[in-house]
Amino acid sequence: MTTFGSILESVREKNPRIHCITNYVTANDCANILLACGASPIMADAPEESAEITALCSGLVINLGTLSAQRLEAMLLSGKKANELDIPVVLDPVGAGASVFRTNAALKLLSEISFSVIRGNLSEIKVLAGKEYSAHGVDTADIMTSNGIAETADLAKSFSHRYDTVTVITGAEDIAADPNSAYVIRNGHPIMSRITGCGCMLSALTASFLAASSDSPLISAAAAICTMDICGEIAAKQMKPTDGNAGCRDHIIDSVFNIRGQVLDKQANIKII
Amino acid sequence: MTTFGSILESVREKNPRIHCITNYVTANDCANILLACGASPIMADAPEESAEITALCSGLVINLGTLSAQRLEAMLLSGKKANELDIPVVLDPVGAGASVFRTNAALKLLSEISFSVIRGNLSEIKVLAGKEYSAHGVDTADIMTSNGIAETADLAKSFSHRYDTVTVITGAEDIAADPNSAYVIRNGHPIMSRITGCGCMLSALTASFLAASSDSPLISAAAAICTMDICGEIAAKQMKPTDGNAGCRDHIIDSVFNIRGQVLDKQANIKII
Amino acid sequence: MTTFGSILESVREKNPRIHCITNYVTANDCANILLACGASPIMADAPEESAEITALCSGLVINLGTLSAQRLEAMLLSGKKANELDIPVVLDPVGAGASVFRTNAALKLLSEISFSVIRGNLSEIKVLAGKEYSAHGVDTADIMTSNGIAETADLAKSFSHRYDTVTVITGAEDIAADPNSAYVIRNGHPIMSRITGCGCMLSALTASFLAASSDSPLISAAAAICTMDICGEIAAKQMKPTDGNAGCRDHIIDSVFNIRGQVLDKQANIKII
Repeated sequence: MTTFGSILESVREKNPRIHCITNYVTANDCANILLACGASPIMADAPEESAEITALCSGLVINLGTLSAQRLEAMLLSGKKANELDIPVVLDPVGAGASVFRTNAALKLLSEISFSVIRGNLSEIKVLAGKEYSAHGVDTADIMTSNGIAETADLAKSFSHRYDTVTVITGAEDIAADPNSAYVIRNGHPIMSRITGCGCMLSALTASFLAASSDSPLISAAAAICTMDICGEIAAKQMKPTDGNAGCRDHIIDSVFNIRGQVLDKQANIKII
Repeated sequence: MTTFGSILESVREKNPRIHCITNYVTANDCANILLACGASPIMADAPEESAEITALCSGLVINLGTLSAQRLEAMLLSGKKANELDIPVVLDPVGAGASVFRTNAALKLLSEISFSVIRGNLSEIKVLAGKEYSAHGVDTADIMTSNGIAETADLAKSFSHRYDTVTVITGAEDIAADPNSAYVIRNGHPIMSRITGCGCMLSALTASFLAASSDSPLISAAAAICTMDICGEIAAKQMKPTDGNAGCRDHIIDSVFNIRGQVLDKQANIKII
Repeated sequence: MTTFGSILESVREKNPRIHCITNYVTANDCANILLACGASPIMADAPEESAEITALCSGLVINLGTLSAQRLEAMLLSGKKANELDIPVVLDPVGAGASVFRTNAALKLLSEISFSVIRGNLSEIKVLAGKEYSAHGVDTADIMTSNGIAETADLAKSFSHRYDTVTVITGAEDIAADPNSAYVIRNGHPIMSRITGCGCMLSALTASFLAASSDSPLISAAAAICTMDICGEIAAKQMKPTDGNAGCRDHIIDSVFNIRGQVLDKQANIKII
């Protein structure tokens, strides 16, 4: 049986190379968390080389933070190349809904590239679920940010159905869903919402888990969430009274460096609905 | 009475969203210090979206580190939008004086945008004080880097008068001045000058303090300086013999995460001149 | 005699300003390690200002991580200005061989700029050693990644001869070679390969060592390697069982902050061949 722990161990054995086209705010943390889990990061975002870099890798992350027109061009080229070569691609639509440019970019990517996993927060996924891509841009969507967990799981399933993907919606509880079933994951710690890049790091981790174990993108995505969340719990427990979000960020990455598959399997708090 | 501590607590209550158009060297630290003080960061620097992002926020930081022509365009668009919507804007003219491009960009921003606070070191403010914006560029200014504190306060006051702003000049002692009066702040620790981004982080903090308490930009700016400086003192005290500037940077952010308003009011070492 | 320790102390005394045109993944770590060793970093990569910034500095680092066409233009302008003014330049050809764009950029830089030191891993240097710059691009080279140490030293010497430079090849053991002799350095720790930016940080350190002591680029380069490697050893020794690559990265920078020249001279494990 493919346990979460065995997927993590498989990342460590296979050492997959992951191409990240990502924002400059959290690129360093994403690189270090990939190294921590046993993968190798390559950050490259020039359209002149991005597809060629992707072709050398076993996974691709497209993250819309600090988006630029040039980086978007690289994302499209790399995403298509990855699809051509059956390399798993993760989309992190950071800030979809915050601007027409960002929302439109996410929808354009969704229309041209096939994603193994799409990971966002509830409002990002809601915005994208309510829109179709149009070359003339989109209007700002109505964004509701609270949802019952069953309703969120349904949203994730239907979004997965529409884009033939696995949808991850992170929040106080996390959801990973394919069109048919959803994992609800109740791990993690509130301080994670006060550390920049926890979402970006999870998206990067997810790509490495998909690269190491491509049988079930749903299980790999759920395993990556559990890894991040349980490492968040471990890190929060290690905090001294003088520690805060900066120290905790390092503890999380360090916990990913040290965590064993067995711990992951033992501490995972999941439900399938 | 608006105490420094009450402004800090008000950031924690209001959780203001702060748009940073900033350099890629310290963007991560700026995001984490904003989260530490209770604000929410958004980093976005594409001209296609920057004004729209600004409109969603309660504060804007324009930081000239690693400036590019494209980022400057975004700064102008966002700055004007912020002025239109009465959103406070902080300018951090990193490197003004180091190149014609940087100096000219700072002067263009000063000529087109109204800033609530301008924060730089002495040489940056001197360069800008000695120049007018010209589309044909500026010559390198004579830069003196040592000044008596009274003289520096006078410079800050007259610069504030000229640009109808609050001017912050940071160094061994820090000054925050409007046209009429100046706070001299004698907190902080020498190691802060050996940590990249202490100035950038202070500019980001300042925007969140202005966003939470817009009554007096001068008091909000002084409160932000005290927060940064006192957290620098706390961090320096926590250092073990093997710690250095990297560990201390995390301690500073963590101290901002933990500091209470009362401690701020008790440890502030200020004089008004 | 110029000992490694005396070069380090000379960085601390002279506080050289180092211009980095570098990637956004590790720019923060590079800035902090330069401050840790006693130098002052300036990061600037706009073609509009890069040569002017270089002219204010005593050292220049050109690092090809997250390369863009615009950053490459800045590199060429700054490199030429540095050559004109006899300012030492370090090339870090990150990812040479991974794409035509990256390889071609490295070769173009090698054909137009004279470098004091070129630092890469074995595959990067092999790629560059096998190619000439051509405006029409290069094919992907055959890359072998394992080599005996004597063979690697020979490669470094002949590469140094061809480009009239000092070549540093880092790996489990590190080599620094001019056309005639090579230092083999057996310091460091395996965890360094799991921390993003150890190579970038070494390239930045090297520029500061060259800036402080320009007599022998070979000795300065070897001293920088030993500093980085010995600080890696010290950092690894400080690790608690819960520490990982993120904590270790900070320990390395903090060790550079604290290390004395004498320790460097005592712990250096070198052989000249």
